[in-house]
This record gives sequence, C-alpha cells and structure tokens, in this order.
Amino acid sequence: MSLRLPTIDDIREAHERLRPHLVATPLLEHPALNERAGGRVLLKCENLQRVGAFKFRGAYNKISQVDRAAFPGGVVACSSGNHAQGVAAAATLLGIKSAIVMPADAPAMKVARTKAFGGEVIAYDRVKEDREAIAARLCGERRAAMVHPFDDWQVMAGQGTVGLEIVSQAAAVGVAPDAVLVACSGGGLAGGIATAVKASLPTTEILTVEPEGFDDMARSLRSGRRERNARLSGSICDALLAETPGETTFAVGQQVLAGGLVVSDDEVRDAIRFAFADLKLVVEPGGAVALAAVLARRYPTKGRTTVAVISGGNIDGGMLSAILGAA
Amino acid sequence: MSLRLPTIDDIREAHERLRPHLVATPLLEHPALNERAGGRVLLKCENLQRVGAFKFRGAYNKISQVDRAAFPGGVVACSSGNHAQGVAAAATLLGIKSAIVMPADAPAMKVARTKAFGGEVIAYDRVKEDREAIAARLCGERRAAMVHPFDDWQVMAGQGTVGLEIVSQAAAVGVAPDAVLVACSGGGLAGGIATAVKASLPTTEILTVEPEGFDDMARSLRSGRRERNARLSGSICDALLAETPGETTFAVGQQVLAGGLVVSDDEVRDAIRFAFADLKLVVEPGGAVALAAVLARRYPTKGRTTVAVISGGNIDGGMLSAILGAA
Repeated sequence: MSLRLPTIDDIREAHERLRPHLVATPLLEHPALNERAGGRVLLKCENLQRVGAFKFRGAYNKISQVDRAAFPGGVVACSSGNHAQGVAAAATLLGIKSAIVMPADAPAMKVARTKAFGGEVIAYDRVKEDREAIAARLCGERRAAMVHPFDDWQVMAGQGTVGLEIVSQAAAVGVAPDAVLVACSGGGLAGGIATAVKASLPTTEILTVEPEGFDDMARSLRSGRRERNARLSGSICDALLAETPGETTFAVGQQVLAGGLVVSDDEVRDAIRFAFADLKLVVEPGGAVALAAVLARRYPTKGRTTVAVISGGNIDGGMLSAILGAA
Repeated sequence: MSLRLPTIDDIREAHERLRPHLVATPLLEHPALNERAGGRVLLKCENLQRVGAFKFRGAYNKISQVDRAAFPGGVVACSSGNHAQGVAAAATLLGIKSAIVMPADAPAMKVARTKAFGGEVIAYDRVKEDREAIAARLCGERRAAMVHPFDDWQVMAGQGTVGLEIVSQAAAVGVAPDAVLVACSGGGLAGGIATAVKASLPTTEILTVEPEGFDDMARSLRSGRRERNARLSGSICDALLAETPGETTFAVGQQVLAGGLVVSDDEVRDAIRFAFADLKLVVEPGGAVALAAVLARRYPTKGRTTVAVISGGNIDGGMLSAILGAA
C-alpha cells in the first residue's frame, strides 16, 4: 500500500480549518539577532501559539476530521508534552474526550498544562514500557482514535500551515528566505513546513535541527534509510527524543528536506539565554534548536536570509532559572 | 510661553524616521488571555522592541533631530534603565556619544545593557542626589544636549508611533479597540499613544496604569493639577517611579487621557507569571502593569476589546526566578 503524503492542498485546507483558532504568531526580525548572524534572521514564533507550541495545529487538523460515530471514545495520543497539550486543547475545543500517554519524566508543567487543557494523562516509563502498545490498548478498550504525534498526513498537513504563514509573512516584508531551519523530533513539522514552503519557493532550502545523539533524521537523510538513535533519553531537549523518523515523515523528508543540522545541549542553553535576555521570548530547549543553530553558526547565515522556527516555549520556571544561572 | 505639544503630524513624521530601525512588534491576541478577560485583549508587545522596551522610539526621534554643531558633545539623559538603553542605542546608531545618569539601585542588567549599547553610565543616589542637576552640569561641561525621558514633544512623538501601529494593526484584524491601557511613569508613552489613537479613533478611551503609591498621573488627571508621589522608591516597577507628570505630558494627558488605573506589586507579579507560563513572553514589572490591570479586573474587559501595551521586558534572571518561585 502506498503511503498517503500531505499535499499543498491538504495544507491549505488545514489552514482554512485552523485559522479561527490560531494565534497569529509573528515572523519576528530583531537587530540583536541579525548582528549575531551577520545576515537577516526571521523567527517564526510558535512558542506564542495556543498551548505554547506548534503542536495544536496538527492535532486540531486531525481531530476535527475524526469520525465520531466510529470513535465514540474520543482520541488517544502518545506525547512527551507538547503534542499532549495540542491534542487535549483541540479535543476540548471540539467537544470530545482525550487520553494522553506521557512519559513519567515529562516536565511537570507539561503534564499540568495537558490536564488543564482537559486531557486525561496516563504516565509510562520511557525506557521500560512501550507507549505505542499502551495507546493501542486504550484505543481498543475505549473505541478511541489514535492521534500520532507526527507520522500521519493529516497531522503533518496541520503542522505545514506554519510554512504557509512563513511564506506569506516573509513576502509581506519583501523577503524570500534562502533557508528555513526547523526543529525535528519525528519530522512532522519539518516535512509539513517544507512541503508548504517549496510549493511557493522551490529554491528555498529546508533543514532539520536536532540535538546531539538524537540526530536520527539527519543520519536517515544521508543514508537513505530510517536510522535509529542509540539512546532514548539524555538531552535537555525533551520534545525532540523520537527514536526514528516516521514512515510518512521520512518519505516526505526525502523529497523536500535539504539535510539536517545538529546542536549540543550547551548551544541550546545559550540560545535560551539569548532569547530571554535579548529577544524577551520564553523558549523551551526543544523549541530553541533552530535558534541555537543560527547562534552557533551551524548554518552559514552571513549575507543570507534565514528563517528559524521557534517551535515551543513550555519550559519549567526551575529549568529556566537554572539555565539563566539564577536558581 | 506656550508649551509645544506633539501633534499627529509629528508622530507620523517620527514613524517615517523610525521605521527602518524598529522591530515590527506584534499586536498579539491569545485565547488564554481572552478567556481570563471575558473579552478580546490585544497585546502590543513593545518588550520585543529594540532594546527591550518602547523607549528606543522616543530617544531615536529626539536624537536624530539634535543639532550636532550646537551640541558637539553628544547627548545626556537621566533614566532608571529603559530610556538609558534607548538613548544609548539610538546615539550609537546615529554615531554620537551618550552619557546616562542612572540610579545606583537600577537593575544590574539595565546598567550592563546600557553600556553594551554604547552608553557611558553615571550612577547617582535616587534619594540623596538630584539627577536633573547632575545631568544639567554634564550638558554644560560637555556641550551635550539633554534627552528628557518624557517631558519633550519630540520624545513623546516617538513614543506615539506605538499608537499609530496599534491603530493599523487593529484595523488589519478588523478591530476598533474600546480602550487602550498604557503603563505610565512620566506620561510620555501614554500621551503619545493617546494622541495617535484618538486622531483615528476618537471614541477609544486611553487609560494610564501605575503602581500603587506611584499614581501621580491618575491623581493629577482627577485633581486637574500635577500631583506628586509621597515616595521615590518602593515598588518592584523600577521603570515607573517618576515623581510627578511632566508639564508637557500632563498638558497632553488632560486633553486625551480618560483617567488612570492602579495595580499592586502582587498583581504585577501575577501578570509576569501569566506572561511567562501562558504567553511565553518575558515582561518586566513596569512593562506588566497594563496586563496586570486586565488580569486583576481593574478595567471592565468583559465583552469589550481592549489593547494592553506591554512596554518592556528588561528583567533580571534573578528577579524573574524569584517571581516564578523558582529561585
């Protein structure tokens, strides 16, 4: 069976569906960042999105199309925390139930916020238990639909709406970006954005950014097959620990992604500090990797125009304080 | 001698001058805030502005018009920290020297940033010394021009450009605000914004927001004469401790301001926490008072459309951590 991949029309339809519920997140250009980069850098601030991350987009697009008669028990999802909040908030907006399988070591604020958005949280052990199996069992018991965090064309189409906005917001300030840098866990956001951006700007390069040791997408794009990470935990980027690219996301990625960049946890901490002190933005570790790639010169921004997606801002006060050296 | 007050044309000219150097700060609408307010709330995010506060606008507009032959020594200013950064950054951009008289108890990051933007910092004792006298002496010695933090029609015209943007950004999303809430220290931002907004939207109410004990503008608007605060320090809102409205700002305020609201330091702390956790914005105490007025229901936002100006984001990591309960 051939895989269903998200098309530009899917993404445009998703945007129509989503528009009334989205925060119009800015494409922000700041002189302090341009100076550091030696070029123009535009930040797509999805940390300012509803639920504090882009994940609301894919979740809402998917859940709004779930057949309620076939799935009377609502939706089930696995998530380290941002997809969890996206699913919970989207399900609540749409008037249906959500149950989220979250790792026991997920940041406390992400668990609390998922509950606050109306989700039922079920904890599991990231190393010893299989979250997919737990979720599959719940779906069967409850007659609920699974909302995969990335490997789903409807979820990807939702995330791709970020790319449509990047294209139109960049055009509004007279810019065609040379490159777009996107945080990557399973690859849904990167593949969705790349599909949307390349439909209008075919020469713009889209690159993923991953934490060191969790660069499965970068290695997969190089080798041509889905590579796995050796570790399941151990980076501060809790949102970017997917073990391997999805089937669908990898198929899309092979078509539209130019390659993958890698940043260290210390470079991520630097980016969080810069965002706090100079940009006045709250950014979580996984949300800061594209900014980190710019600041650490992992990509040649000099004399070019680069978009970096800030994908999330759900960081505990304690972790931010520790990173700022103030705890 | 009659006072020169800023006109709408002054503000439009200032905007032309400033535009190439400004961050295009968003007018952000977030569902988490609308839910709390029971109405629509649009946040003008001047914490994201160059130097982390609106103050760059007034400083640049003023300094770009200083007669360099008459004032070969550059510019001098008094400031608790944000005007300091605005003057330093604007002077450096324009290629002239700046000396800033700052209170010895100003937040360390504001002093450090003022120096980083190229300003010379001269410390004084907020209670024992007269900063105006120190600045006047410096101006004489150096043949430098004074850049007052608020009581100057050119500075006010610069700050008023925030109001032009509020009007056009609100119109772009089909909104005419019922009210605009603006932080107030000396009254330059509030008067400038009110002049700009009322030129297009004469029925929109513009209200100042001040910290408890430092509500000189609110009391002055009620009594019809310039009232003084009993204290010179003692609020966490370090940016909003001006002793009394300026002559020019009060004259403008009497014409265009609808009145003044007051918030407590604890309400400001709540607003900073809300901005961090739900909006993902870094906001300093003085920058948070308008948001605090919304959250604490000091203004009837229910069923109405309210703009709240977030005027600055220059908060120390240590203070933010303490407010988040994470230090």
